[in-house]
Amino acid sequence: MQTLDLVGTFAFAISGATAGVRRNFDVFGILVLACVTAVVGGMTRDVLIGAVPPAALTDWRYLAAALLAGMLTFWFHGAIERVRHPVLISDAAGLALFAVVGTTKALAFGVAWPMAALLGMVSGIGGGMLRDVLCAEVPVVLRADVYAVAALAGALVVAVGSLLPLHEAIFPPLGAAVCFLLRLFGIYRRWKLPAAR
Amino acid sequence: MQTLDLVGTFAFAISGATAGVRRNFDVFGILVLACVTAVVGGMTRDVLIGAVPPAALTDWRYLAAALLAGMLTFWFHGAIERVRHPVLISDAAGLALFAVVGTTKALAFGVAWPMAALLGMVSGIGGGMLRDVLCAEVPVVLRADVYAVAALAGALVVAVGSLLPLHEAIFPPLGAAVCFLLRLFGIYRRWKLPAAR
Amino acid sequence: MQTLDLVGTFAFAISGATAGVRRNFDVFGILVLACVTAVVGGMTRDVLIGAVPPAALTDWRYLAAALLAGMLTFWFHGAIERVRHPVLISDAAGLALFAVVGTTKALAFGVAWPMAALLGMVSGIGGGMLRDVLCAEVPVVLRADVYAVAALAGALVVAVGSLLPLHEAIFPPLGAAVCFLLRLFGIYRRWKLPAAR
Repeated sequence: MQTLDLVGTFAFAISGATAGVRRNFDVFGILVLACVTAVVGGMTRDVLIGAVPPAALTDWRYLAAALLAGMLTFWFHGAIERVRHPVLISDAAGLALFAVVGTTKALAFGVAWPMAALLGMVSGIGGGMLRDVLCAEVPVVLRADVYAVAALAGALVVAVGSLLPLHEAIFPPLGAAVCFLLRLFGIYRRWKLPAAR
Repeated sequence: MQTLDLVGTFAFAISGATAGVRRNFDVFGILVLACVTAVVGGMTRDVLIGAVPPAALTDWRYLAAALLAGMLTFWFHGAIERVRHPVLISDAAGLALFAVVGTTKALAFGVAWPMAALLGMVSGIGGGMLRDVLCAEVPVVLRADVYAVAALAGALVVAVGSLLPLHEAIFPPLGAAVCFLLRLFGIYRRWKLPAAR
Repeated sequence: MQTLDLVGTFAFAISGATAGVRRNFDVFGILVLACVTAVVGGMTRDVLIGAVPPAALTDWRYLAAALLAGMLTFWFHGAIERVRHPVLISDAAGLALFAVVGTTKALAFGVAWPMAALLGMVSGIGGGMLRDVLCAEVPVVLRADVYAVAALAGALVVAVGSLLPLHEAIFPPLGAAVCFLLRLFGIYRRWKLPAAR
C-alpha cells in the first residue's frame, strides 16, 4: 500500500509541476508547487487525526518522489503536455490511491466511518485545491467534472467495507477502482453534476 | 451551547452554499464549499489548541447541519436570494455564536485570555476567509464593514469575563449579543473603519 | 535567539501591513493581514511537529510585535513606502531569522535534518504565501527572485551543521547570513532561476 501511496505522490506532483510550468514559474517555484500539490492533502489528514509529525515529514521517500516528478516535468514538460491523457490518467490514479489510503489511515486512528470517508476525500482533493489557490484560481474540484464525488465514492467503499464481515483486503483495491473509473468516465463522457437553477 | 454551535454551523453553511450557487458550481462543489465555510474556523481553532480530532470530525451533527443547509440552498436559493436580510442576519448570528463558543473552548483548554479571544475571532472569521479564497477573491473580512472587529469584541467579552468574580454563564450570551449587534449596526449604518491616508 | 525571532515577526508584519495599505483595507484588515503574515509560517511549523499550542499563541510578545508593526505601518506608511529598501532589507532579515529559528526548533523536536531544513523554509515563506493568497494574488515566492531558495540555503546550513562535530552555536548566525545575503543579491542583481523552455 505504501508503494501505491508513493505512486500517487508522484502523479500529483506532476500535475502541480505542470501547472507551474504553464504559469512560467522558475524551477524552484515549480518544485514548491509540485511538493505542495503532492503532500498537503495527506498532511491535512494527518494533522486532523493527530498523527504528527505527518508521514510526509518523517519518510524522505515522499519528498524524493515529489521532487523527482517536479524535475522530470521541468525538463520534459514538452513531452508531457503532448501526451495529455497520461497526465489525466495518472492524476486520476493519484486521486484514487490517496482517497483509499487516507480512509484506511483514518480508520486505523479510530475515526468513525463516515468521517473517515470524508478524510479520505480530503486527502485526495486537498493538494489540488491548494495548487489552484496558489495559482490564484478557483479550484477545479469546485467547478467541474466528477472529481470530489469520485474520491468520496472510493473512500466510502473502504469505509463501509470496514463494517462488513468480509476480508478487509478486498476493499482498498475495489475503492480505488471505483474512484478511478468514475473519474475517467467523468472526463471522457463529460459527465456534469447539476448546477443550481 | 452545543445547540447554538450547530445553529452557527447551519448559518455559515448557507453563506458558503450561496457563494457557490452564484458562481455556478455544481451541486457537489456547493456542498464542499458549504462544509468548508461551516467547519474550517472551528477546525483551525481545535488544531491550534491540540484538540484533535476536531469536534466537527467526531460529532456527525456538524456535518449533517452543513449538508442540510447546503442542499436547502441548492434547492431554494431563489427564495434565499430574495430575502437577503435573513441571510445576513443568520450569518451575523453564526459569527456571534462561533466567536463566543470558540473563546469558551480555548479558555477551557488553558489558553491565556487574550489569545483565547483571538482564537474565538479566528473561529468566527476563518471559514468565511477560506470560502472567499476558494472563490479566488479577497476575503470580505479584510475589506469591509465591521466584521472581524465584531467577532473580536464578542470574544473579548467572554475572555475578560472569565477573569471577573461573576457567574460565568452570563458572559457568553452577552458576548454573542455584542458581536451580533455590532455586526448588524455595521451593515445597516454602513460603518466603516478608517483606511490609511 | 528569541529576540531575533521577535525582530523577524516585526519585519514580516510590516510587509503584511504594507500589502494591506496598498489595497485600501481598513485599519482592522491591515492588522489582520500583518498578524497573519507574521505568525502563520511559524504556526504551520509548530502544528506539523506537534508543538501545540504554537509559540505565537502562548507568548503574547509575538502578537504585540505584529500589532505594533501593523499600527506603525498604518500611521507612517507614507514614510515606509518612500524608503523601499529598508522594507526589503527587513523582510530579508525576517526570512533569514525565521528559516534559521524554524530549523533549530524542528531539530529540537527530533525531526530528521532534511525535513528540519524544509520546515525552516516553510517557517520563512509560509506567512508571505498566505499574505499573497489573501490578496488574491499568486505568491511572490512562486514567481520570482531568489526567495525560497535563500530560505532553504540558510535552513540547510543549520540542518547540516547539526551533524558536524563543531560547536552548534556558530551555525544559526552563519545560516542567517547565507540566507540574508543570497536574498539581497537576488534582489539587487536581479538573479533569476531558470524557467521551463
